[in-house]
Amino acid sequence: MIPLGGVEEIGKNMTAIEYGDEIIIVDAGLQFGEVETPGVDFIIPDITYLKERKEKVKALFITHGHLDHIGGIPYVMDSIGNPPIYSREFGSLMIQKRQSEFPNSEPLDIKTVRGDERIQIGKNFSITFFAISHAIPDSMGLLIETPVGTVAFVEDVRVDHVGGKVTQKEIDHYELFKNKEILLFTLDSTSVEKPGFSIPESHATETIDQIMKDVAGRLIIGTFASNVERIIEIIKIANKYHKKVIIDGRSMKSNLEIVKQLGLVPVDNLIPIEEMTEHPPQKIVILTTGAQGEEFAGFDRISSKSHKYITLSPSDTILFSSSVIPGNEMAVQKLKDNLYRQDAKIVTYLDTTVHASGHGNRDELGWIHQQIKYRFFVPLHGHHYMLKIHSELAQSLGTPKDNIVVPDNGSIIEIYDNGTKIRVRKDKAPSDDIMVDGFSVGGQQEVVLRDRQTLSADGICVIVISVNPKTGKLRKSPDIISRGFVYLKEQQELINATRALVGKVVESTAHGMHPINFDIVKNTVTDDVRRFLFQKTGKSPIVIPVVIGV
Amino acid sequence: MIPLGGVEEIGKNMTAIEYGDEIIIVDAGLQFGEVETPGVDFIIPDITYLKERKEKVKALFITHGHLDHIGGIPYVMDSIGNPPIYSREFGSLMIQKRQSEFPNSEPLDIKTVRGDERIQIGKNFSITFFAISHAIPDSMGLLIETPVGTVAFVEDVRVDHVGGKVTQKEIDHYELFKNKEILLFTLDSTSVEKPGFSIPESHATETIDQIMKDVAGRLIIGTFASNVERIIEIIKIANKYHKKVIIDGRSMKSNLEIVKQLGLVPVDNLIPIEEMTEHPPQKIVILTTGAQGEEFAGFDRISSKSHKYITLSPSDTILFSSSVIPGNEMAVQKLKDNLYRQDAKIVTYLDTTVHASGHGNRDELGWIHQQIKYRFFVPLHGHHYMLKIHSELAQSLGTPKDNIVVPDNGSIIEIYDNGTKIRVRKDKAPSDDIMVDGFSVGGQQEVVLRDRQTLSADGICVIVISVNPKTGKLRKSPDIISRGFVYLKEQQELINATRALVGKVVESTAHGMHPINFDIVKNTVTDDVRRFLFQKTGKSPIVIPVVIGV
Repeated sequence: MIPLGGVEEIGKNMTAIEYGDEIIIVDAGLQFGEVETPGVDFIIPDITYLKERKEKVKALFITHGHLDHIGGIPYVMDSIGNPPIYSREFGSLMIQKRQSEFPNSEPLDIKTVRGDERIQIGKNFSITFFAISHAIPDSMGLLIETPVGTVAFVEDVRVDHVGGKVTQKEIDHYELFKNKEILLFTLDSTSVEKPGFSIPESHATETIDQIMKDVAGRLIIGTFASNVERIIEIIKIANKYHKKVIIDGRSMKSNLEIVKQLGLVPVDNLIPIEEMTEHPPQKIVILTTGAQGEEFAGFDRISSKSHKYITLSPSDTILFSSSVIPGNEMAVQKLKDNLYRQDAKIVTYLDTTVHASGHGNRDELGWIHQQIKYRFFVPLHGHHYMLKIHSELAQSLGTPKDNIVVPDNGSIIEIYDNGTKIRVRKDKAPSDDIMVDGFSVGGQQEVVLRDRQTLSADGICVIVISVNPKTGKLRKSPDIISRGFVYLKEQQELINATRALVGKVVESTAHGMHPINFDIVKNTVTDDVRRFLFQKTGKSPIVIPVVIGV
Repeated sequence: MIPLGGVEEIGKNMTAIEYGDEIIIVDAGLQFGEVETPGVDFIIPDITYLKERKEKVKALFITHGHLDHIGGIPYVMDSIGNPPIYSREFGSLMIQKRQSEFPNSEPLDIKTVRGDERIQIGKNFSITFFAISHAIPDSMGLLIETPVGTVAFVEDVRVDHVGGKVTQKEIDHYELFKNKEILLFTLDSTSVEKPGFSIPESHATETIDQIMKDVAGRLIIGTFASNVERIIEIIKIANKYHKKVIIDGRSMKSNLEIVKQLGLVPVDNLIPIEEMTEHPPQKIVILTTGAQGEEFAGFDRISSKSHKYITLSPSDTILFSSSVIPGNEMAVQKLKDNLYRQDAKIVTYLDTTVHASGHGNRDELGWIHQQIKYRFFVPLHGHHYMLKIHSELAQSLGTPKDNIVVPDNGSIIEIYDNGTKIRVRKDKAPSDDIMVDGFSVGGQQEVVLRDRQTLSADGICVIVISVNPKTGKLRKSPDIISRGFVYLKEQQELINATRALVGKVVESTAHGMHPINFDIVKNTVTDDVRRFLFQKTGKSPIVIPVVIGV
């Protein structure tokens, strides 16, 4: 087993499982760019290992339709021979929807698994799906039978419970493990750091029910568009109170199309936003995007008073049915400031229970461990420290340390000696962060990203120098172009001093050279100007001299 | 009263209070740069209003020695006539320490207030300090008597309690309000969004005590260097268990110098880091910086194995006695990953109570409100939404809405009609974000910051074009210099196509022009190249043509 992504981050989950000359893959996700990767749209797993073994790759299995599990598909399928994709229905439709944005890709061969069928892949793999609880319909675990034993592959998961007592439905999900010996078990590590049981989804929806019942005006709910189960529940509650539901925001609408298509909830009470004013405010529930402060999303437009249809009034209630994803705190603070400047009432998960996570806390994960009799354990889905904490949890529940592997991206985990031992091989599969940066997809972006970081802190200064190539004398005063450095309009003195310095440096460096070595001239200008600008401004812009011999 | 900073952010707290022709100021803080202000070191309050009334400014009062209350001093004092600064002892020493980093500033006139003395400022102000609980010694509230009534000015504050029952010491702090009529009350809003009482400091230090007692090896504690009270407590606990304490990290050492100077804790058990190996590991407690993932701080060096003295071993216990400040989440995740790659045991506030906030939760703030009989209320210290929530809290406790002002930076709050009414004037004091960006200090940075943001996402492309000014023909193929755009070494084709495009555009635009209007040529090149590059790469770099007529 080779985790190609997802074990050094939250995102870009992808794992290859290899036996003999056959490989199957589980998930192919993406990760969103970070502060350290400015300008980068997505990061996807490094699939070099699979490319080099293209003919072995037999199938891709999808655990659920979230972007960190399916978002890499448009970028990787062509390179790995476009194997068939096996997914439950909701995931299939999510994949198709996304693929339609990539019209130049080869068509995908999506095989939708509808029931409990067994999928035979090549000679070595036999796979069945089993239901688990997460935040999107058709979230599945995989049972992968191989000649050497069975892999129980579980990614994103929570455990339904009431006050720490696991519900019967949840117990039933794991019933199939009762008399099964599992060779290798994998599990989500996202929330392993958080003690106890997480707030159950049922608790969050009960609170939302209460709020919806009580509000005197419009109820505007922001939640993750990916939290499809929550959206379905909210529509059900609105049905109960005979309220009309308006779906706003692109990703929310897009996911709701699939909900409609699959008939997962009665949608008679859905109305287009244009009809909002035909109903009294207390009969209106609006579901919108942007609760993380995303630019141009529904809440961004509402808060900046640029939403075409929604203008807040003091009788409105805004409900953020979501937590704040690490990294989005500042954007959410700004969003809340703008919303509070209008006079709507705002309810967040800090006030009351209006959000539950799709990822189980430590005791939920522990409960799942206890349902499964496995020999080896590999924690997945998390930063390294989460995986380590998950390893400690497994040890505390009786798994010997030697039976656990905490992998890195690209670790080649080998089960050997007829399934009795596990180890990480010394060689590694390539595991660069592959950046999707505009149309460019690749791992060679370090230089560009380093430049972007410098540019963003200190800017750039280009100096165009016209020199007589024979005498080394300047033809004219140098042109200085800078961006992101200092506000040059107020720095005429600095520009003049820099020009004078450049002239002096060029002429003194070139003096006596026959012929003039322009590389030496450029390097001297770069060093001297950089030092001069830092002394004068405290900033270190990128300095680029362009010497034109005329 | 004019809040010049601190009411649209957490940071740069500064408030002016004016009566007749006299102004006193409370605090002069800074704010650290954000994602939206790349490259900016600090942001400080806009003091234009004070500069224009320099002769009125009589004194600066300091509530406590944290940077968001004193950090602006080196940048503002010269401009406002260098008035005397009144502070308790700890704050005075913090100010002096910081000022020593600005040797070119005028010397400060710091007046240390040691007891309960009353300070008369001009004809109109009479000020006393009173003790409150926060996270740094000598944290004070101010009672500012004016001809029209008394201002109770409280900034950063928590309330000491046991399980929600306020301690006697805390009750005593507010005893002085028993028979006092307060005209105007101000209060910290940082944690008003969080319900109930926060974890009390005593609870955190008890847990740390327990951990210190039990550890078998070295205990390495990370906390905010600004949390001086915690640091003092940790040294006391170490004393109790006869352990040696090592102080590591610049800001931690710097603050401890002041602790030593004031004799706030016995420091016989402090040893220099060089002597660490002379003691058994279980007798060593290390206090270090960088628990927020700050670059080059103690933990950064430990985690990257570049610390001169500290190398982790499996018997070490690391304790993060701090929460994660919004915006630092990703940096902390990376730090934890690197620490977990070594095998030390790590304890964080998610595992157990090892941190308490210096800012009281909603019920603590509510308790303070109830100790003070005030007419008007102005919430301070927070983002706008926090101030709004604080206003709702005050209303729920009986203050009429008309008696509350939720200010913005620069709001001129006027109490009139002989102290019976409050309003915000229509005119505002200037309230730009003043950026400290290298050596430049000013509010004119928008253009530069916008450029930095574009540069950081899409980079820059400078095109140097040598043209015959008579014919409009290119003298040579254009030079293309780009940084942060795409990895040009792999894009030779793109460069060649861009060169060809530039040549075509220049020559066709210039064709038939007599004389050639180079501005038109440049604008056409900019537009066409920008469009072309976006079509080819999906990126929108800043495009700058430099046309040289030769």
